[in-house]
Amino acid sequence: MKIGFIGFGQVNQTLSEKLKNTHQLYTSIENRSNTTINNIKKAKINYFKTDIELAKNVELLISANTPKSALPTAKKYSKIYNGLYLDLNNINPITTEKINKLFPEKFIDGAIIGNIKKLQLLLISGQETEKLKFLNNIIETKIISKKPGDASKLKILRSTYTKGVSALLKETFDIAKTQNIDKQLWEILEKTENNTNFKENSISRIKNTEKNNKRKIEEIEEILEFLEYINTSDYNKIMIKSTYSKLKNL
Amino acid sequence: MKIGFIGFGQVNQTLSEKLKNTHQLYTSIENRSNTTINNIKKAKINYFKTDIELAKNVELLISANTPKSALPTAKKYSKIYNGLYLDLNNINPITTEKINKLFPEKFIDGAIIGNIKKLQLLLISGQETEKLKFLNNIIETKIISKKPGDASKLKILRSTYTKGVSALLKETFDIAKTQNIDKQLWEILEKTENNTNFKENSISRIKNTEKNNKRKIEEIEEILEFLEYINTSDYNKIMIKSTYSKLKNL
Repeated sequence: MKIGFIGFGQVNQTLSEKLKNTHQLYTSIENRSNTTINNIKKAKINYFKTDIELAKNVELLISANTPKSALPTAKKYSKIYNGLYLDLNNINPITTEKINKLFPEKFIDGAIIGNIKKLQLLLISGQETEKLKFLNNIIETKIISKKPGDASKLKILRSTYTKGVSALLKETFDIAKTQNIDKQLWEILEKTENNTNFKENSISRIKNTEKNNKRKIEEIEEILEFLEYINTSDYNKIMIKSTYSKLKNL
Repeated sequence: MKIGFIGFGQVNQTLSEKLKNTHQLYTSIENRSNTTINNIKKAKINYFKTDIELAKNVELLISANTPKSALPTAKKYSKIYNGLYLDLNNINPITTEKINKLFPEKFIDGAIIGNIKKLQLLLISGQETEKLKFLNNIIETKIISKKPGDASKLKILRSTYTKGVSALLKETFDIAKTQNIDKQLWEILEKTENNTNFKENSISRIKNTEKNNKRKIEEIEEILEFLEYINTSDYNKIMIKSTYSKLKNL
């Protein structure tokens, strides 16, 4: 298949690397930074000087840039392109719906799950998802539905969880470092967090939070008192305070 | 060993069940509720009518109740008891220090890690921890240091993380249920969260959050716009808003 890449960051670099032996790959260097042009040359894929040439020569465009650029980029290409359009930006289902209207029937909503370099899982939804089944050769590709927006809806909810976890980890270990116990804390957390019962454990955590609300609130009050005592900055109390507010308002 | 239990909730029930064949176990029924007295009878351990009798007849007292009751309970027993005193309440290191002073040299700071029923890990710190090595037969018992407070410090920092995760899970799945995609969301999360590389993945999440701050902020703005669009309640936006604030103020 003749595939065109819009944007040449981590996502499209990874995909091109895996697809270059079996497909004809293209991009455009119009308005690209020197760094990006160097990356394109290093990746040894074909490139055009203009976006219009790119649009006229491919059957599938893969857009992977930043959330904010997704819609303007789609608007531009919708005027010069008629093929399949796969959007892999981390956009929300509202933006997905807007882009969908720009490429009637031809739009595919895509959402990469997990670290792109690990190529773990790709969710796709849209009318023409069957045509992207070949992606299964490089990444597990799960067809969610025929409705664009369904893939990004799942991605966005997953993201509310994982981004929160990242913020929590940062906060916890920033505090642990001030107490010089970060190494011991990793050891202890590994004991309970290293497991393959994520769903079971998580359901039990949710139930436990709901059932033992009063005790959990008391425990957080103990934590807050301690953080105060060791002069923890307000910045390092953002997540624990919201956890407290979550439990208090349950 | 002659062991006395103060409080007979889940923690002491679980411990007594595991220790009853190898040790002499006691508790007191003074001022206990009918439910607790029934649990004591069911557990088939010895009981005294008064706390004073309990205090006079054991070599080790294990206090496991609620954080708020820990200090008043310790104060009461410090006047009538001279043996080892192990506190397993989820108290913070400030309270630990206060209790430590009530039982000079005899106090052991204990912290159960994970669900008590699973008996995964017990952290202990204090002068006399060697005398509690027998606990290793029923739960992995890790001696942290000779200083009371060190065990509870680790426990409390772990707790800031796990309680936050619980609150996050609740928020994410409460929203997912309103969209009727909770089942698909579990499947997708299991894909990346079911693993035994907790430390490695977590370090990469922290680094990624710091390094790609600008993009992550944009992604959360997409999430917030979507949550607004589907009329998510303020309660279901507590964690994601604090994640946003965490990233914005990095």
